[in-house]
Amino acid sequence: MINTLAIIGVGLIGGSFARDLRALGLVREIVGYGRSLGNLQLAVELGVLDRVAANARDAVMGADLIVIAVPVGSIGAVLQEIAPAIGATAVVTDVGSVKQSVIGAARAALGERFASFVPGHPIAGTENSGVGASLEGLFRGRRVILTPTAGTDTGAAAHVYGLWQAVGAQVVSMDAAEHDRILAASSHLPHMVAYALMDMLVRMDEHRQIFEYSAGGLHDTTRVAGSDGVMWRDIVLANREALLSVLRQYHDDIGEMIDAIERGDGQWLLETFQRARRGREMLNKP
Amino acid sequence: MINTLAIIGVGLIGGSFARDLRALGLVREIVGYGRSLGNLQLAVELGVLDRVAANARDAVMGADLIVIAVPVGSIGAVLQEIAPAIGATAVVTDVGSVKQSVIGAARAALGERFASFVPGHPIAGTENSGVGASLEGLFRGRRVILTPTAGTDTGAAAHVYGLWQAVGAQVVSMDAAEHDRILAASSHLPHMVAYALMDMLVRMDEHRQIFEYSAGGLHDTTRVAGSDGVMWRDIVLANREALLSVLRQYHDDIGEMIDAIERGDGQWLLETFQRARRGREMLNKP
Repeated sequence: MINTLAIIGVGLIGGSFARDLRALGLVREIVGYGRSLGNLQLAVELGVLDRVAANARDAVMGADLIVIAVPVGSIGAVLQEIAPAIGATAVVTDVGSVKQSVIGAARAALGERFASFVPGHPIAGTENSGVGASLEGLFRGRRVILTPTAGTDTGAAAHVYGLWQAVGAQVVSMDAAEHDRILAASSHLPHMVAYALMDMLVRMDEHRQIFEYSAGGLHDTTRVAGSDGVMWRDIVLANREALLSVLRQYHDDIGEMIDAIERGDGQWLLETFQRARRGREMLNKP
Repeated sequence: MINTLAIIGVGLIGGSFARDLRALGLVREIVGYGRSLGNLQLAVELGVLDRVAANARDAVMGADLIVIAVPVGSIGAVLQEIAPAIGATAVVTDVGSVKQSVIGAARAALGERFASFVPGHPIAGTENSGVGASLEGLFRGRRVILTPTAGTDTGAAAHVYGLWQAVGAQVVSMDAAEHDRILAASSHLPHMVAYALMDMLVRMDEHRQIFEYSAGGLHDTTRVAGSDGVMWRDIVLANREALLSVLRQYHDDIGEMIDAIERGDGQWLLETFQRARRGREMLNKP
């Protein structure tokens, strides 16, 4: 049982986690803080929060579990602000999509309290943001990756592990560098692909006609281009090297596809499309 | 009332159109032909076809409406084969995703019967193929673009127009070159983006882990990479110039994104992501 849960950044992920823990009766009181007062008020109205703190430091005072669910680029600053107010037995975790940079920021901000920090990443979400998009059961059947370091307290890690399991997630532990490399390909690259496509089309003179005569293909391919820009700017900058590696490869591959089309190479196109189709079938049935 | 409807290529689109026309009581008999005997037998079992013809020419004999629903690259050969067997009052239409190349092929194959050919393109479908994927109501609320030429018989065009309206589609007429340019951006480019992404990931050593730790982003962005490879090879080759134009632009844009990430340009990234997000909102609410 968590006596007081503090959520810093009460959006889709933070809000959904809070909803689940409350629904399961695992928490007595939930206090939150975030930058948007309107969003925080909505969180109280929706019953996600019991009360709103005046700032992040106040929010974590007396809390036994602290969840940092702000964009990756802000996690370091939040940890620095709350560090002096973290209780002696409190456990701190985050939900950031990049882990090496967050671990570095946590080490710098928390000093000797770094052991109580459990780096985490629930692989869940939608393109919608804010507490209004949060929902119960978001993590059911989804993966949550924890990337504890040699300096992470085992009890703290086990506590966070158990909570994600309780809300229905499949929890795995992984090295932070491996996490960042895999997620660059499985998540960060698809977002760049979608953002670049939608940004290109909306800048075209004929974009209204293009949208009018589109179907499921464009709709699905660009769905994640509706994601929050600040969150994704932070992810890109925090996972720069791993993302650049796969994005450069993608750029080269598009270049090869252009060459194949220019020379009318039907065989190359067919082989590529069929290999991709087999890959897509693997994705559907892992 | 159509006495005999001939469907050449009884797949997702041809099969769904046949199902709808039958459900509406607009057709007495449906005969079909295609390359896969197994698929044709399934079409009879599913009640999509009344009978299977031995070849395309036999299929169209005596038919008053002929729907060509084969991959774009095969339409010309099918039209050449059936040309001598098309009845004097029969109307011919197609469902190909590229229109200028199909019109050129039809003009060459049909000679003086070209007037009875109504080029058409229903903007509907899924990544699944074959008559097993066909379903009633696929075209409800979807766009169907007709691209009649100066040589197209007005009565034939009106007939095809009325049938697509009857199955619930919103039918519009458009110049074939304009169709090909818009569809290159709205449909063909997103398919290339998805195929290239999935093909790249499946060739990576870590692809099983990448798929395992993926979520809705990768799933949706690559959905159309599950599409039929032959169909898409044909579309690419048939709409080569228009597709190359947008694919080169996309390649340049990915290159600019790489440059921005390399120099750590958060402002560029944020502006691009936010512009794309606004575009995505336009797509949702046209």
